[in-house]
Amino acid sequence: MNFCSQCGSPVERKVPPGDNLPRYVCDNCGTIHYTNPKLVVGCVPEFAGRILLCKRAIEPRLGYWTVPAGFMENGETLQQAAARETREESMNDVEVGSLISVVHVTHTQQVHVFFRARMLHDRFGPTSESLEVKLVTLAQIPWNDLAFPSTEFTLRRYIEDRAAGSDRHHFVELERRFS
Amino acid sequence: MNFCSQCGSPVERKVPPGDNLPRYVCDNCGTIHYTNPKLVVGCVPEFAGRILLCKRAIEPRLGYWTVPAGFMENGETLQQAAARETREESMNDVEVGSLISVVHVTHTQQVHVFFRARMLHDRFGPTSESLEVKLVTLAQIPWNDLAFPSTEFTLRRYIEDRAAGSDRHHFVELERRFS
Repeated sequence: MNFCSQCGSPVERKVPPGDNLPRYVCDNCGTIHYTNPKLVVGCVPEFAGRILLCKRAIEPRLGYWTVPAGFMENGETLQQAAARETREESMNDVEVGSLISVVHVTHTQQVHVFFRARMLHDRFGPTSESLEVKLVTLAQIPWNDLAFPSTEFTLRRYIEDRAAGSDRHHFVELERRFS
Repeated sequence: MNFCSQCGSPVERKVPPGDNLPRYVCDNCGTIHYTNPKLVVGCVPEFAGRILLCKRAIEPRLGYWTVPAGFMENGETLQQAAARETREESMNDVEVGSLISVVHVTHTQQVHVFFRARMLHDRFGPTSESLEVKLVTLAQIPWNDLAFPSTEFTLRRYIEDRAAGSDRHHFVELERRFS
């Protein structure tokens, strides 16, 4: 951030009076520009025991596999965001279910939230955001070609919980990679 | 938003190519400025069956009561944010526990997240953010003087769950007021 989005003057990075963290501050109009973590929301769409994966058509991680997920928009709920992302990335429609995971991706200033979801039909296909979309069994998940650590964390917890017949949710903080 | 924070040129609100929502776009440097919901995080600190409430020293809702909560900062987890807000608003230290509520406050473009929390000691007091801090029984909660609908929703679910001996979590979308 170089300029004030309110008045167009140059901003300075400093700790405002009464605060304890550096912010982008405009000395011309007095605006303090806070930056906060962004929410990325997705789901694991399920149909007859199989799950829906999308091969990314856009960077980052173009060509790698993920479950439908993306940035939450203003004016929607987390569940609405997960359903919208599923439509945009796979043309499928889901009923969003219980919470699986909350992944703190602190180095990118994001919080990723994933839900279980029930596919309302088995019609799906590629979109401008996905090169390929497929229904896979849990044994067919391409673990070495997953797009993001949060995708892998979520799918591993999803599988464990499904095997245990439970509906738990899991919090984690992920560094750039995890084992 | 009037000016591009990257280059200082005026921005225009329009739907970028390949998108389906209006964004603030800079035609000079090409930056698209996305705005997304912000996370507000808090907890219900508990000590020997009583809970900790803070009387707000700052707007909005100055003089009204709330549990410790505030905007999540970059680089922290939700749980760390809840503990930090508790320190800043009450000087108390907590161990953050299970999730109580996720409140979609869509008209202010916020997602509020609250946890149960265990107070590590019973030392607390007013700060620059709180005029007064007190431990109250559930019967002493000032329902008519609570700061926000999300505070009330969270405390009602907390009380119901405590009575039922359960640790559930609850999603809701709140309009400006709710009954």
